[in-house]
Amino acid sequence: MTFQFPDYKQPNFDQEPFLSSPDAQVIVVKKPGVAPEHYHALSIYPEYFKINGDWILATESRMDGVPVLRTDGSVHVVEFRNLNVGDKVIVGRREDGHEGIYVYADGFRSNDTNKDLFAFRSGRSRETAYSMDYNDLYELLKYEKDHGYIVWVLGPAVVFDYDSRQALSTLISKGYAHAILAGNAMATHDLEAALFGTALGQNTYNQQSPPNAHYHHLDLINKAREAGSLKGLIEKEAIDEGVVYSAITNNVPLVLAGSIRDDGPLPPVIADVYHAQDEMRKHTRQATTLICLATQLHTIASGNMTPAYTQKNGEIRPVYIYCVDIAEFAVNKLRDRGSLEVTTLVTNVQDFVVHLRNNLVQTMQDS
Amino acid sequence: MTFQFPDYKQPNFDQEPFLSSPDAQVIVVKKPGVAPEHYHALSIYPEYFKINGDWILATESRMDGVPVLRTDGSVHVVEFRNLNVGDKVIVGRREDGHEGIYVYADGFRSNDTNKDLFAFRSGRSRETAYSMDYNDLYELLKYEKDHGYIVWVLGPAVVFDYDSRQALSTLISKGYAHAILAGNAMATHDLEAALFGTALGQNTYNQQSPPNAHYHHLDLINKAREAGSLKGLIEKEAIDEGVVYSAITNNVPLVLAGSIRDDGPLPPVIADVYHAQDEMRKHTRQATTLICLATQLHTIASGNMTPAYTQKNGEIRPVYIYCVDIAEFAVNKLRDRGSLEVTTLVTNVQDFVVHLRNNLVQTMQDS
Amino acid sequence: MTFQFPDYKQPNFDQEPFLSSPDAQVIVVKKPGVAPEHYHALSIYPEYFKINGDWILATESRMDGVPVLRTDGSVHVVEFRNLNVGDKVIVGRREDGHEGIYVYADGFRSNDTNKDLFAFRSGRSRETAYSMDYNDLYELLKYEKDHGYIVWVLGPAVVFDYDSRQALSTLISKGYAHAILAGNAMATHDLEAALFGTALGQNTYNQQSPPNAHYHHLDLINKAREAGSLKGLIEKEAIDEGVVYSAITNNVPLVLAGSIRDDGPLPPVIADVYHAQDEMRKHTRQATTLICLATQLHTIASGNMTPAYTQKNGEIRPVYIYCVDIAEFAVNKLRDRGSLEVTTLVTNVQDFVVHLRNNLVQTMQDS
Amino acid sequence: MTFQFPDYKQPNFDQEPFLSSPDAQVIVVKKPGVAPEHYHALSIYPEYFKINGDWILATESRMDGVPVLRTDGSVHVVEFRNLNVGDKVIVGRREDGHEGIYVYADGFRSNDTNKDLFAFRSGRSRETAYSMDYNDLYELLKYEKDHGYIVWVLGPAVVFDYDSRQALSTLISKGYAHAILAGNAMATHDLEAALFGTALGQNTYNQQSPPNAHYHHLDLINKAREAGSLKGLIEKEAIDEGVVYSAITNNVPLVLAGSIRDDGPLPPVIADVYHAQDEMRKHTRQATTLICLATQLHTIASGNMTPAYTQKNGEIRPVYIYCVDIAEFAVNKLRDRGSLEVTTLVTNVQDFVVHLRNNLVQTMQDS
Repeated sequence: MTFQFPDYKQPNFDQEPFLSSPDAQVIVVKKPGVAPEHYHALSIYPEYFKINGDWILATESRMDGVPVLRTDGSVHVVEFRNLNVGDKVIVGRREDGHEGIYVYADGFRSNDTNKDLFAFRSGRSRETAYSMDYNDLYELLKYEKDHGYIVWVLGPAVVFDYDSRQALSTLISKGYAHAILAGNAMATHDLEAALFGTALGQNTYNQQSPPNAHYHHLDLINKAREAGSLKGLIEKEAIDEGVVYSAITNNVPLVLAGSIRDDGPLPPVIADVYHAQDEMRKHTRQATTLICLATQLHTIASGNMTPAYTQKNGEIRPVYIYCVDIAEFAVNKLRDRGSLEVTTLVTNVQDFVVHLRNNLVQTMQDS
Repeated sequence: MTFQFPDYKQPNFDQEPFLSSPDAQVIVVKKPGVAPEHYHALSIYPEYFKINGDWILATESRMDGVPVLRTDGSVHVVEFRNLNVGDKVIVGRREDGHEGIYVYADGFRSNDTNKDLFAFRSGRSRETAYSMDYNDLYELLKYEKDHGYIVWVLGPAVVFDYDSRQALSTLISKGYAHAILAGNAMATHDLEAALFGTALGQNTYNQQSPPNAHYHHLDLINKAREAGSLKGLIEKEAIDEGVVYSAITNNVPLVLAGSIRDDGPLPPVIADVYHAQDEMRKHTRQATTLICLATQLHTIASGNMTPAYTQKNGEIRPVYIYCVDIAEFAVNKLRDRGSLEVTTLVTNVQDFVVHLRNNLVQTMQDS
Repeated sequence: MTFQFPDYKQPNFDQEPFLSSPDAQVIVVKKPGVAPEHYHALSIYPEYFKINGDWILATESRMDGVPVLRTDGSVHVVEFRNLNVGDKVIVGRREDGHEGIYVYADGFRSNDTNKDLFAFRSGRSRETAYSMDYNDLYELLKYEKDHGYIVWVLGPAVVFDYDSRQALSTLISKGYAHAILAGNAMATHDLEAALFGTALGQNTYNQQSPPNAHYHHLDLINKAREAGSLKGLIEKEAIDEGVVYSAITNNVPLVLAGSIRDDGPLPPVIADVYHAQDEMRKHTRQATTLICLATQLHTIASGNMTPAYTQKNGEIRPVYIYCVDIAEFAVNKLRDRGSLEVTTLVTNVQDFVVHLRNNLVQTMQDS
Repeated sequence: MTFQFPDYKQPNFDQEPFLSSPDAQVIVVKKPGVAPEHYHALSIYPEYFKINGDWILATESRMDGVPVLRTDGSVHVVEFRNLNVGDKVIVGRREDGHEGIYVYADGFRSNDTNKDLFAFRSGRSRETAYSMDYNDLYELLKYEKDHGYIVWVLGPAVVFDYDSRQALSTLISKGYAHAILAGNAMATHDLEAALFGTALGQNTYNQQSPPNAHYHHLDLINKAREAGSLKGLIEKEAIDEGVVYSAITNNVPLVLAGSIRDDGPLPPVIADVYHAQDEMRKHTRQATTLICLATQLHTIASGNMTPAYTQKNGEIRPVYIYCVDIAEFAVNKLRDRGSLEVTTLVTNVQDFVVHLRNNLVQTMQDS
């Protein structure tokens, strides 16, 4: 069975206020990195701009980015810090079309059915029933594996446990990851597990702390710095399993963004966080599914730069964002920060990843 | 492979202070339900009392219960409220044998290995590696199924989700439960799911709230009260699946303790909480493994009445207590309340139960 | 300044569908404790029933209770278990007036202002700004002290800390509590603190665990059982401070509901939970403000039986419910269980109670 | 009353194994940023190295940093990435003096008293009694104000609420902060509150979201980028209150470290996280008290670089670290990452900061 997207209903611009609304206004950037007053900022939804009488969609989007009209009539979305003098920024904050700007939140939505005045349990929490979400995700990932671009956003906890680290490695090597966004800690502890069997000094299986194991992550980093690259380290130390190993041997791009918590860091970690954002966005702009596991920092960072839709060859499809964390607060935060179309699961990411592996990879073997 | 218990090392009473210590002292109860001053109270560990020159173990134990010397020389452990006038209560609070009382915490323990001054991650949290705990539990339950007494302590969340409700029902019908302790809500929502497909008004699979679904749990309770018993309800409504159904059809005792949160209640719910404690203790005193899922109230209640060991035909073996909850605070609380020998897993019980079913029941089918 | 309630806007029944709707239908109870099919169940909101052509309000309400028409034409709300044979239960589940039943949720509500398509941070969490909620509560309590009925619902944690226990005792003795609903643990540890300085074995100020302090709560309970009543205990042991002491000496009713977690219990603890519900409801039906601190069990139990309004001498005013807990999940649960009009604060109850004392009692001394 | 530190007990090196142990060994760095094998890494405790027969303390410390012997015989602690070719790194991992390295964890500790086999509630949680910790902190801060170096580490939540933002601003202007470590979000939302009354679009007092308020933080950042500096922004927009304003006008250094979550960023935010670490460490190496509020990222980063002691003019005193967060997991994490000597408080930082202001500043006014 092929996974079915909801159809995208194109907005009908053959009606008011769209017909008689003016073209979107632009004002030119005077100072690098500073937008003109009344600049428009993007949401996660498709946004149309009236340019030369036509309603066009931005070529790609990013929440809180600024729309810039190019000379070819296309609209690009640019971060504040990347605005250049002379850029024509679209201005205006009405979202309903009257100012030549239209934010279209309902493109994928079916009509809501009638609802009671009251229903229990409207929020999503540890007590939400997740069976359907799991099943949907299994179907989605089988489809995306060959037709989409799956981006994983990983906190270090996912490599602290033997089974979940193995499961994630398997998913990567079976083609279920097209890019991985993480930080120094995830890569460090994954490689520490490969070399020493521990993550932050504790055995990933038997929970023991061997003598001097609190040196392991530092030793690992030091060896990697000596080797000069993760690839070099893997060769030198004959590492043959794990998340980093699977990513590198399967040519899955691995963006490691630096943070002030980092030891080391490992060689490929990007020290400049805004440069890291640019590297992350290279993948989130292609993403068709984003799966964020147990990291508030990377999840909100990635969520902010992932729109609710993507377009390819003129076709528009939804982008699916999953956020898995054991704390309601953490998963709600992504939503509270504007990523409204996220599916949240409140559980331990260890169990989540193992379920995915069991249902995706073993199903494949059976068939 | 058969699951291996740690051997119980009998304490060596052929040494001081045990040899020259006096018999345990007793004082007679004067007022019903009131212990004499300096009464001794039990811990979760095996406790020996010197009676007529011999060190004997209480026939069974309960934390915070009071040891009562019977005329046959045996020691029974009695709750305060169950003390009768004339009961001979053992008094004394030294635990080291000098007063004829010996608390023996190390019976199952192997010698600790040397440890570093410092190790990371000493507590158990969402970031603890649970692979080994899962594997140990799988082996344990395979053994206990035929040789032990597995008591489940269930919060309602475990029946809110389609897969976990199915998984738990399957485990029960396959022999992995010898008793179930829960409250009105678990049974209500399980039966609501059987009859209406919802739990507290929300579909356990598709997360929808059908019109007037907030009446479902009340309707279910009303129907059960009409039927007069759960068995009657199941027959009348032709219910053929679920936790309550599986328990009843497989003759697994189901103790439902009342609470002030209850609607209804269902017919078999025990209104008097101390009577409910007595009914619960009938099963915890037989328990060899106790698995507590997503309920602080029932977990701490059951944990309090489950000792760390059990004896049968003169043999002493450990009792395994598992506590699974999504909040570190909840699982730590059981430990903070004196149940020191508990294995805690911090995750969503939905995933936990599904893992158990997948590993226990499918393994069986394969072989 | 006097605290200002929102006015209650009486529903306008001089319009359709109210004018031409039929009287509410009743069906007679056939079996004790069982409602007829299609019984109506109450929400937290005011509900009107058309009786003999007039729309009348139930004399008092309780969520999930059943409306019973009395021979004098009044409507009483009765729990399922309290239904008697012959009771005339109002049936029907349309809430819009067409069946003679009208659920009126907007009585205290001002008109909503227009809202943006999107706003950040719509939920309430640890990051919600609570300054206004605190100030409103201070004003409310100053008013309620003399004109309302303030019911406190207390988990044990509030007496674990020196300052918060003192603060709460002061609030009680200064008239800020008209009833207290709690369990065995709150009273036990409060009295333990009065007698031994500890709560569950730990000093409430210096956090030390004195030798054998894990006996303290058992000793306290045993002494209370010996004394036969809390009043007797207080006299015998010359206890002169604390929550229980302040309640008893100020004639503030203290309802202690039993639970399966209880040690002991203390003499006045109610063993039968449904009897306990009846005793609790005696106070919640009078409540004008309900403040629930750090207890899921008692909070949801009390919240379920407290409607969003109260009427006295024909006047209808809102009932204010506050729920304070350190976990978003806990405070959201009350809302998810139907208590929609609750104000939640996510913080440690220790700090909350101390703030209240500092702002209410010290303000009084200044003036 | 003057705050009393525990005396530092100098280790007694006039005994074995110290007398006959060899000098600490060094190995020279061959590759920049890479330590020689068997390098030693520092803990949070004082560590002594035997150099030319004398036991000397490192001039300052940093957990996981590497000790480098300088030509003047002093030992400096250097991050891996800052190691230069030719640096003499001390090697060896025995901590007991036998290899010329001695980790001294007990310098400030009084002798432990005897403990029971069992005590309830050994961990710190929401239920820990915090009264003493608050009182100790009040006394400490009064002393540190004039004699120490108080470093605040701030997550954005502390400026989301009206009262806590005011309280913190007051503490800064009254001299209770010597440095502030934070990120782009804290400064952005504090200045947003100053200019628009909102934090991330929500009014910090009345919780309303004004129209288009989700533009406020972007507008604020854009204005700051236009102004070119926070000082310039404050002047241009006539900002006269808040955390950033109070810091700048009172010459309290404000280090803003970049992260991948950042919008903007504000002009002074440090894009390179390792450069940010260097700037942060300038303050943590002077810190005598560190107070971390509601930020895992900055708390662990700062905690990692703050040792348990500081030395000045040959005197050694403890460094006090406080970590306040509403989640047990968050405060335990700092401890699990090696910052063992931290005092944790589990509460909402809003209440914490208001308590501090009320007790420190109002006390001052009274006297």
